[in-house]
Amino acid sequence: MDSLVFKQDRPLDLIAIGRLCIDLNANETQRPMEETKTFTKYVGGSPANIAIGVSRLGMKAGFIGKVSDDQMGRFILQYLKENNIQADNIFTDKTGAVTGLAFTEIKSPTECSILMYRDNVADLKLDPREVSEEYIKQCKTLLVSGTALAKSPSREAVFLALEYARKHDVVVIFDLDYRPYTWESETDTAIYYHLAAEKCDVIIGTREEFDMIEKIRNFGDSDNLATAQRWFSYYAKLVVIKHGGGGSIAYTKDGDQFQCGIFKTNVLKTFGAGDSYASAFIYGLMNRFNVLESMRLGSAAASIVISKHSCSEAMPTLEEIQGFMDTADEVLATAN
Amino acid sequence: MDSLVFKQDRPLDLIAIGRLCIDLNANETQRPMEETKTFTKYVGGSPANIAIGVSRLGMKAGFIGKVSDDQMGRFILQYLKENNIQADNIFTDKTGAVTGLAFTEIKSPTECSILMYRDNVADLKLDPREVSEEYIKQCKTLLVSGTALAKSPSREAVFLALEYARKHDVVVIFDLDYRPYTWESETDTAIYYHLAAEKCDVIIGTREEFDMIEKIRNFGDSDNLATAQRWFSYYAKLVVIKHGGGGSIAYTKDGDQFQCGIFKTNVLKTFGAGDSYASAFIYGLMNRFNVLESMRLGSAAASIVISKHSCSEAMPTLEEIQGFMDTADEVLATAN
Amino acid sequence: MDSLVFKQDRPLDLIAIGRLCIDLNANETQRPMEETKTFTKYVGGSPANIAIGVSRLGMKAGFIGKVSDDQMGRFILQYLKENNIQADNIFTDKTGAVTGLAFTEIKSPTECSILMYRDNVADLKLDPREVSEEYIKQCKTLLVSGTALAKSPSREAVFLALEYARKHDVVVIFDLDYRPYTWESETDTAIYYHLAAEKCDVIIGTREEFDMIEKIRNFGDSDNLATAQRWFSYYAKLVVIKHGGGGSIAYTKDGDQFQCGIFKTNVLKTFGAGDSYASAFIYGLMNRFNVLESMRLGSAAASIVISKHSCSEAMPTLEEIQGFMDTADEVLATAN
Amino acid sequence: MDSLVFKQDRPLDLIAIGRLCIDLNANETQRPMEETKTFTKYVGGSPANIAIGVSRLGMKAGFIGKVSDDQMGRFILQYLKENNIQADNIFTDKTGAVTGLAFTEIKSPTECSILMYRDNVADLKLDPREVSEEYIKQCKTLLVSGTALAKSPSREAVFLALEYARKHDVVVIFDLDYRPYTWESETDTAIYYHLAAEKCDVIIGTREEFDMIEKIRNFGDSDNLATAQRWFSYYAKLVVIKHGGGGSIAYTKDGDQFQCGIFKTNVLKTFGAGDSYASAFIYGLMNRFNVLESMRLGSAAASIVISKHSCSEAMPTLEEIQGFMDTADEVLATAN
Repeated sequence: MDSLVFKQDRPLDLIAIGRLCIDLNANETQRPMEETKTFTKYVGGSPANIAIGVSRLGMKAGFIGKVSDDQMGRFILQYLKENNIQADNIFTDKTGAVTGLAFTEIKSPTECSILMYRDNVADLKLDPREVSEEYIKQCKTLLVSGTALAKSPSREAVFLALEYARKHDVVVIFDLDYRPYTWESETDTAIYYHLAAEKCDVIIGTREEFDMIEKIRNFGDSDNLATAQRWFSYYAKLVVIKHGGGGSIAYTKDGDQFQCGIFKTNVLKTFGAGDSYASAFIYGLMNRFNVLESMRLGSAAASIVISKHSCSEAMPTLEEIQGFMDTADEVLATAN
Repeated sequence: MDSLVFKQDRPLDLIAIGRLCIDLNANETQRPMEETKTFTKYVGGSPANIAIGVSRLGMKAGFIGKVSDDQMGRFILQYLKENNIQADNIFTDKTGAVTGLAFTEIKSPTECSILMYRDNVADLKLDPREVSEEYIKQCKTLLVSGTALAKSPSREAVFLALEYARKHDVVVIFDLDYRPYTWESETDTAIYYHLAAEKCDVIIGTREEFDMIEKIRNFGDSDNLATAQRWFSYYAKLVVIKHGGGGSIAYTKDGDQFQCGIFKTNVLKTFGAGDSYASAFIYGLMNRFNVLESMRLGSAAASIVISKHSCSEAMPTLEEIQGFMDTADEVLATAN
Repeated sequence: MDSLVFKQDRPLDLIAIGRLCIDLNANETQRPMEETKTFTKYVGGSPANIAIGVSRLGMKAGFIGKVSDDQMGRFILQYLKENNIQADNIFTDKTGAVTGLAFTEIKSPTECSILMYRDNVADLKLDPREVSEEYIKQCKTLLVSGTALAKSPSREAVFLALEYARKHDVVVIFDLDYRPYTWESETDTAIYYHLAAEKCDVIIGTREEFDMIEKIRNFGDSDNLATAQRWFSYYAKLVVIKHGGGGSIAYTKDGDQFQCGIFKTNVLKTFGAGDSYASAFIYGLMNRFNVLESMRLGSAAASIVISKHSCSEAMPTLEEIQGFMDTADEVLATAN
Repeated sequence: MDSLVFKQDRPLDLIAIGRLCIDLNANETQRPMEETKTFTKYVGGSPANIAIGVSRLGMKAGFIGKVSDDQMGRFILQYLKENNIQADNIFTDKTGAVTGLAFTEIKSPTECSILMYRDNVADLKLDPREVSEEYIKQCKTLLVSGTALAKSPSREAVFLALEYARKHDVVVIFDLDYRPYTWESETDTAIYYHLAAEKCDVIIGTREEFDMIEKIRNFGDSDNLATAQRWFSYYAKLVVIKHGGGGSIAYTKDGDQFQCGIFKTNVLKTFGAGDSYASAFIYGLMNRFNVLESMRLGSAAASIVISKHSCSEAMPTLEEIQGFMDTADEVLATAN
């Protein structure tokens, strides 16, 4: 698939736009949160994790977002800068917004849940007037995360960023990252995800996320190929559909199809799998790995992160991924 | 311009979607509203007026909208039905919304103003779940009015209607009809007007309305041809830019350009000019008049309506328009 | 009952606080509003009507309130000034609020209804910081209307006005004037009416209004004497309970009880009965009529107003009331 | 001061109403929160702490409040029950509210701050319909905390509880506990604190809190005696004004005045001083200690809690307080 053209003369490899938040991960695991005592603080949020992930893989990343004007917001800014992420286009809210929180509960590798604080959060207050056309045209790739579409004015900021990206030949990658909280209704979700996805070159999501978009349109078949083809009638050139333990499947506009399995690991929790997959997969695509090799990088990165306590902090380097792939057992994909 | 294809086998000529409201026109004119005593009640709202206008010209129109559950809402429903407009897809709000009001003040032919009541109005509560794909595919043309984009959930209802229209080859006509009230900001306005206009076949607006969309994009030239051409890169095939007393100018995707002047009349007020223009222009387009002839029909209808006290009630028949054109003085366009 | 002491050295007889709105009365009566064509505009709102009423009876009235920054607001200000009401403490909203509207429908003398526009209204935006202690101490009587308690910040403005009035020995008269719209719930209504009524010297309301306050307290008896006595344990010295066509009944803290009937009239509509009753009754109390004579003045004023098309415009002079009482048939009270 | 009469035949010593939240105390102290890594979770909120405090001192406490329907809410319920607090009148929110959070930052004993999460919190959703007259009449004392007045419907729930308490001769103690977040304005704060304090028998607050109530009333003197006397004109019989390190001063309606100093301790942070003071002071008042002895108990309890990491968990038993008082240095009051 050679149709994604990354403009090589741009100073930034990737700009992510959207959610910046704090994960508070229970230190005591294998029990319900009612019985946990202490929490450890990490930077979180899907696009933040992906920016950190690609940065750790050696790419130059920037971010368009908004943080709260308090200790939490300053902690996020500081952590991103320490991870070599350009933070000039991260604004500080002045309206009294807070940083979104995600308290994680790890009862067992298969029973994980998140308690979210998403009221009045700074990240959703990103204003379209803060999205700079000049900044966007300095990058090869724009990474959009679906949660930023959940509310105004962040929603409009994303649509403007998408318009600028298309205008300046920036490759747009959309990680669906659907989180029901903060959305008004499933209908709204389906409508805005569709309007955004129409403008993207690469769309990555779980089968359930694609189903959510398709629901109000009554296709009702969960047919991976049909899903991919519908997006090819807009700008999409590559669609990746993830099936959890069943691996992932990718389709290209020019007719190719790739299936990728997973790597066995000692699972602590499932959080962070999607973000680590996305960052290593994008790294692959932008660094001349082919689609299947990129998927395998993503899959390996995911297996590394789900064996560790955090998401952002656990994002692997290329050496770690390659070392892991050399020794881990690979399981074939069942997704089709 | 033969590229607009109206599906002739559809039972409805046009479905309008959006605002349904009440005009309360001061009976005492030539004075400020502080000094008026009585008001006359009419059905109003741009898409309502256009539906009434095309219906009076003999076309079969339907409507997708929402009215309040009170005497005002019932009056609107009754009036539309009396005007042969299919009202099955007009829903009645159950949340306590009211009907939008427009009190008009006519100080002189050139000093008219409107005092709007747009808080908690029923028309903006149209929900995307109330937009029927089955209904939309029964029409040749969907008429979208910009005010319906001002707020959720009406905004999402319009985007879903646009998706259905495109899917079923319904010709989409967008009357910009920009009204600052109810919009959060000019940035939001520009973003959502753009997202909607991208999906439309015909776009009609004043120069000021097109400028408003272009403002955040810094084209800044108010160049009619450049404006039209930007829309031709999406789905648009015909763009009409109105210049008030300077007439109107139309561009087609295949490169034609038409200028149309105005007809002299005894102006009472300026309200309703745009709606009557749109209805007669659409009538022309859909009934094998050429673009310029359609513009002249629109222009004549506008001159008739601005000489009368109401908008909806004053919408002319074809006979009235033709009679008027036979006798009225025509002034050449200055717009270019 | 000589326990109400009006401070005679104050320049203003009465200051009213609260709602200022517009009545739009259908000119075509004896039909549903769906079939009415035209409306006549009047100043309305219970405390506005009472201020106009006492002013027409020769008293010096002022007003604390807020109007919209548009033609409707300016019309109200102008009308009050023409009626000799001091308007220096009426503020003009700068947030885009509108004037509340009341469209009246008169199907028959016993079937009248009101369609209210109460969203985002200026009168409920009166801010406690706009309530002047200096101003309140210049009056003998403060007239509070219950609708001003329906929402913040008007609610807090009333509580502050009540505190100032008590501090400066202003007699506080509370006209319950309960209107369900704009109140969050009946529980809220009952709580805030109670907190306000505790601080009032005279409480006037219909039996249904007193029942509404008592409902969450489970007295459940609608016993007029018990109702009155509960208020005497706070500051109240006089409680008037109105029973529509059954007349009204008043209790004083020192143990007296008065029943007053009604005057026969040619009823056009029921609106305005309460406001005209209150203004003439207050006039009586403050001008050395005894309680029963004051009630009869109120009753006569009410009969005059309900035979006319408007409320505010129809408020009678003392001559009109006395002329009417000389000729009208009086019906004995059935309330007890 | 023998005028506070606690009804001895009631099964509950005290019912607290209001805020239930979670404290997340940084484990790493002496540094800004940007640099802390982990947090320990405790039950918090002023009335919760006071209920826990009096319970640990051997009194029987109940609570009227609302928790979120999640792990945080269940943790609070469980902890209160483990501390012998009757929780039958704590309701679980069903609208998606969250538990309020207080992240504490301890830079030094004198530089402590709190980062609050107070948007959409369950405690402020306590509805007046959930306040049971039957329950309130089962207690000797109702403890009201000012933060519960900050927003509807919790505000109305408190006013109804106050009405029930007065009706059934429950002694009402008001801990001002003013927190600026969630209040609309200082004017609102001053108005509602006043309306509530008017109905209370005992009022406890810092000098700054009393100043805040007095500000809009322009007394402007911060005169402790004048402050106390103004409240004695309503129901208050005892007013306690705290001056931090300067100790506290109490006034009784019958003219007594008491000053109490503080006990030296190894201060870790200042949080929890007020709540521990209140609980031991109330314990004293209700267990036949005189006013000054009760103040000394409060002062000792405060010194114990500010030397420890938590508030709720650190609440002392009577033995701890007495042991501490035997050995700690007492510093004389400077407040007057």
